[in-house]
Amino acid sequence: MPIPQPNLYPPFNIVRLSHVELRVTDLQWARAYYVDTLGLQITHEDKAHIYLRAMEERGHHCVILKQADTGDVGVLGFKVWDEEQLDKAESWFRSRDLPTAWIERPFMGRVLQTRDPWGTPLEFYREMDRLPSIMQHYTLYRGVKPLRIDHFNLFAPDVDGAVQFYSDMGFRVTEYTADEETGRSWAAWMHRKGGVHDIAFTNGTGPRLHHVAFWVPTPLNIIDLLDLMSTTGYVENIERGPGRHGISNAFFLYIRDRDGHRTEIYCSDYQTIDPDHEPIKWDLKDPQRQTLWGAPAPRTWFEEGSAFNGATLAESDLKAQPIVAP
Amino acid sequence: MPIPQPNLYPPFNIVRLSHVELRVTDLQWARAYYVDTLGLQITHEDKAHIYLRAMEERGHHCVILKQADTGDVGVLGFKVWDEEQLDKAESWFRSRDLPTAWIERPFMGRVLQTRDPWGTPLEFYREMDRLPSIMQHYTLYRGVKPLRIDHFNLFAPDVDGAVQFYSDMGFRVTEYTADEETGRSWAAWMHRKGGVHDIAFTNGTGPRLHHVAFWVPTPLNIIDLLDLMSTTGYVENIERGPGRHGISNAFFLYIRDRDGHRTEIYCSDYQTIDPDHEPIKWDLKDPQRQTLWGAPAPRTWFEEGSAFNGATLAESDLKAQPIVAP
Amino acid sequence: MPIPQPNLYPPFNIVRLSHVELRVTDLQWARAYYVDTLGLQITHEDKAHIYLRAMEERGHHCVILKQADTGDVGVLGFKVWDEEQLDKAESWFRSRDLPTAWIERPFMGRVLQTRDPWGTPLEFYREMDRLPSIMQHYTLYRGVKPLRIDHFNLFAPDVDGAVQFYSDMGFRVTEYTADEETGRSWAAWMHRKGGVHDIAFTNGTGPRLHHVAFWVPTPLNIIDLLDLMSTTGYVENIERGPGRHGISNAFFLYIRDRDGHRTEIYCSDYQTIDPDHEPIKWDLKDPQRQTLWGAPAPRTWFEEGSAFNGATLAESDLKAQPIVAP
Amino acid sequence: MPIPQPNLYPPFNIVRLSHVELRVTDLQWARAYYVDTLGLQITHEDKAHIYLRAMEERGHHCVILKQADTGDVGVLGFKVWDEEQLDKAESWFRSRDLPTAWIERPFMGRVLQTRDPWGTPLEFYREMDRLPSIMQHYTLYRGVKPLRIDHFNLFAPDVDGAVQFYSDMGFRVTEYTADEETGRSWAAWMHRKGGVHDIAFTNGTGPRLHHVAFWVPTPLNIIDLLDLMSTTGYVENIERGPGRHGISNAFFLYIRDRDGHRTEIYCSDYQTIDPDHEPIKWDLKDPQRQTLWGAPAPRTWFEEGSAFNGATLAESDLKAQPIVAP
Repeated sequence: MPIPQPNLYPPFNIVRLSHVELRVTDLQWARAYYVDTLGLQITHEDKAHIYLRAMEERGHHCVILKQADTGDVGVLGFKVWDEEQLDKAESWFRSRDLPTAWIERPFMGRVLQTRDPWGTPLEFYREMDRLPSIMQHYTLYRGVKPLRIDHFNLFAPDVDGAVQFYSDMGFRVTEYTADEETGRSWAAWMHRKGGVHDIAFTNGTGPRLHHVAFWVPTPLNIIDLLDLMSTTGYVENIERGPGRHGISNAFFLYIRDRDGHRTEIYCSDYQTIDPDHEPIKWDLKDPQRQTLWGAPAPRTWFEEGSAFNGATLAESDLKAQPIVAP
Repeated sequence: MPIPQPNLYPPFNIVRLSHVELRVTDLQWARAYYVDTLGLQITHEDKAHIYLRAMEERGHHCVILKQADTGDVGVLGFKVWDEEQLDKAESWFRSRDLPTAWIERPFMGRVLQTRDPWGTPLEFYREMDRLPSIMQHYTLYRGVKPLRIDHFNLFAPDVDGAVQFYSDMGFRVTEYTADEETGRSWAAWMHRKGGVHDIAFTNGTGPRLHHVAFWVPTPLNIIDLLDLMSTTGYVENIERGPGRHGISNAFFLYIRDRDGHRTEIYCSDYQTIDPDHEPIKWDLKDPQRQTLWGAPAPRTWFEEGSAFNGATLAESDLKAQPIVAP
Repeated sequence: MPIPQPNLYPPFNIVRLSHVELRVTDLQWARAYYVDTLGLQITHEDKAHIYLRAMEERGHHCVILKQADTGDVGVLGFKVWDEEQLDKAESWFRSRDLPTAWIERPFMGRVLQTRDPWGTPLEFYREMDRLPSIMQHYTLYRGVKPLRIDHFNLFAPDVDGAVQFYSDMGFRVTEYTADEETGRSWAAWMHRKGGVHDIAFTNGTGPRLHHVAFWVPTPLNIIDLLDLMSTTGYVENIERGPGRHGISNAFFLYIRDRDGHRTEIYCSDYQTIDPDHEPIKWDLKDPQRQTLWGAPAPRTWFEEGSAFNGATLAESDLKAQPIVAP
Repeated sequence: MPIPQPNLYPPFNIVRLSHVELRVTDLQWARAYYVDTLGLQITHEDKAHIYLRAMEERGHHCVILKQADTGDVGVLGFKVWDEEQLDKAESWFRSRDLPTAWIERPFMGRVLQTRDPWGTPLEFYREMDRLPSIMQHYTLYRGVKPLRIDHFNLFAPDVDGAVQFYSDMGFRVTEYTADEETGRSWAAWMHRKGGVHDIAFTNGTGPRLHHVAFWVPTPLNIIDLLDLMSTTGYVENIERGPGRHGISNAFFLYIRDRDGHRTEIYCSDYQTIDPDHEPIKWDLKDPQRQTLWGAPAPRTWFEEGSAFNGATLAESDLKAQPIVAP
């Protein structure tokens, strides 16, 4: 299917991705990993939850760690432009026969809870508690010095379908991988906030979260994190990298927590805000789209991901993702 | 005057700053400076003009160097969301009794020419020739490896007035310097595209262009440029830096061409896209707003700038900018 | 065998490793690779040879590329303290029944030609043409910005024997890998100039050159080289990295030319000049000695190397090097 | 006076500079500055002393902070090759009618205490307690991540005399500033360990310590320190930089503690180990020798330094150091 034209006047105005709830089976282990090692900042902590923000963020949280029996993902959150957009969003999801509910969430105003057609749990909101800036509190910087949440990446059983659905919502494609023979998309990167992506979809059993990504200042911060993790008991949590993706030009590192939740640490994004910004098409056979420098990725990176709580998995009818493995 | 509330539904939709025409008295000298030394890429060149883009840009140009008798600035250009916005822009400027004209410009579609109330020459457009991406053509990277144009900074004789005018147009304030006693603003940073600024205003005789800024990947690129300039005959063109601004948290370098046009090279911006993003207020008496690390700036940096072609200079009624000099 | 005590008063005073002659089957291809891509500087060029130096070196050359029928290695060169040391060296090699000859070499004074007991071709000299410094000619910096040659790494069929021989000559061990059960060394790093190594030995069929290494300023230069190589037709020449060795703490990249000659690009050495500097012992079973961060190395890296011209290969009686492969 | 020829067979073999005793008037303030902010590691602490080492050092200490009534410098320490060199050193200083004594120092073997002809307190030793490596204990890295002590820089009332004296001892000149008209040296950089300097002398009232320097991995660590110091109450302790010296090519930052003791943080040294390494001569009138990039240094940097305990100050008969000030 061809990539849809950008929807310049979407049904409601989403500003950006905002937060993710990661359900973890050992909250204290997760605290050591996300706070002491990665360097995210705690904004609230109770017996069952840790709320985190990155260094330049003023919203109350971008990650919620929640003690749970299963290490899956609770919800993906998005911020909208104003309260009116929430009502428009409700109508839009309803018109597509998708479930909607207004729920209460700590530290947030009105929250619209819903799911996409594949069952991915989504929530939209306008108002979240705002906190004082700590961007120049350099004494707080630790670990990889994460600056902000950047994007979600999902395994999708129907990438063409997902691209159409999220495009209807106003997300615009920046890069995609297509199979020349069938014309079908294998992966697509879509944005609202003017970078390469707020959300991306990769062909595979889904919906599952492949990773949540954080933006850091320079590649040297990623090297610092690797040195730290590999000498403090986290070497097994390093999955892939450092390297450069052909797609998105990102300098990346992938790490996984004990429940398998994958985090991408990256820098080197580019600006995509122009309404006539042309998507870049990558050939499924081009190995440099995954790794510009040619280094192989491990099989786990292609196959494993985090389930969404309450969603039913579906397999893709496309044959397995071609693995560029050693 | 208090900072105006963000105008979330502006009269027309400006996407971002786009380009600047720098009039230079020696085009070949300028070529050696902007192309061979800074590393901007030529996209068109004729006897009297050189069109340039930065490494990640797909629009045809972000800088026009134009051979001229006087080293002033021709125009500041902005991109709008669609053609309809151009018509809305025309109405809006007309309604304020400001001059408007539809003009022809090479490599561009319809161009609306106008001026702000202080005479700053502006142009708005939707369509500019799009070029293939060279972002991953690493063999072309030279000099400071400029990735994209980032913002304009102007001397303004009436900062409060400029902030109100540009706020009405939809620009939102991210940081500002205020005089606690009078309540008047001395400087303000305003954005459309989600970073610290597309345009900024500083108290002083104006309108004049203080600088145009380019985004680069890391501080090390700025160090590379300093090493290169200081050993190839450009040491006198280095004006200030490297350093960190308190305001914007930018790691910066300021350089000036032979006509005095100032360029800021910088990195370390942050994301400001939230509709409820709170401006940061700096006290006029806080020396760290200018230089977080305490190093003084030279007098030229506070006083000199490029005139705009066809604009009449006005003095500010605020006493001279307090200079943090050695 | 235990690591020998450092020989603080060696029979002759070697200052440092100095140069290598790489015999290449396509001199023009090699020129594009070592000069245009890596950034080594040509100091002399004729039909059959290209002489190269790195950016901070004042000696005439650290690499000689020589057009040849076979892509092997001509010689490893070392600089001694004064002319008297050359005569002492001659006596020392003779006393061990090793071949010696005084030969003529362009751009050099007296050259003592010899071989170690395994046939590795060596040469010693005091005087090489000195060239003006180009360290601050920043306009010449290209590619990975190589600053200086750093070390040789050899496959050795008898690591314990090699360590004893080179220790007798005055090289001192900084790190080594030992098999706890047999007590035998599998690899050793030895220096003269005060860093981790001038020469290193790894168990394997030999003598063969595993790699010659160049020192660069920061990890970002290595990332720049990867970006450049992967987008200018050299992606197949990238073998391993970037990564951090446990041993030596080096941030590394390994690349190979068309003849298979391997180059390590690295930074993050440390000072080892103290006479009582203690060697670090690594357990053969510790996977982090090779890759601190846990990423696997390809099989070629463990098995392939460059033969030395005129040397006969011998197999090691130790079982094959344990490969940390995916 | 012309620079002396390198003394290739000195009277005794000094390996490198080793340590400095800084007498401080507020030990707890100094602890917060050198340990918590710069990142040096405590190896011993008692009521009146704090012993520090940098991250890659295995010797027990490179800095001793000593509670004192006056903020001056106790001693400069150097390590020699073996015990025999200590006896040779004693003879050599005695033969020059300089005071010598064998003293006890904690954590060290035999210590020879002496002074140079201008009264600078020196000590030589072979044996200091050796500690386990913490180079790869990345969790301990803080502040500027100091790797090792690198050099001392002294104000000298007679630079030509100091160069001759230290050259006789085996130090070799790498760079120097000369007055073309008088032929006299204004400054000289001298080494033992193969870098630009172990000790340097600058014309001025002396003997005084201008600074002690620490080597760090990359310029980004210096930027991190600036961000940290400027936001944790140490902005007044930042004196000069960041910048690049023409001399030594060092990327530098100068900071001063509460007693005025100046520390240089730097990277970008080069290798000078060759016996025929030619000194670089800088013209006194070349402003780029001090600051390659042209930025001025503050007057304090040219004029202020730390007295040595027990030494009598003498003025230079050369007119005051020309100050490159704004």
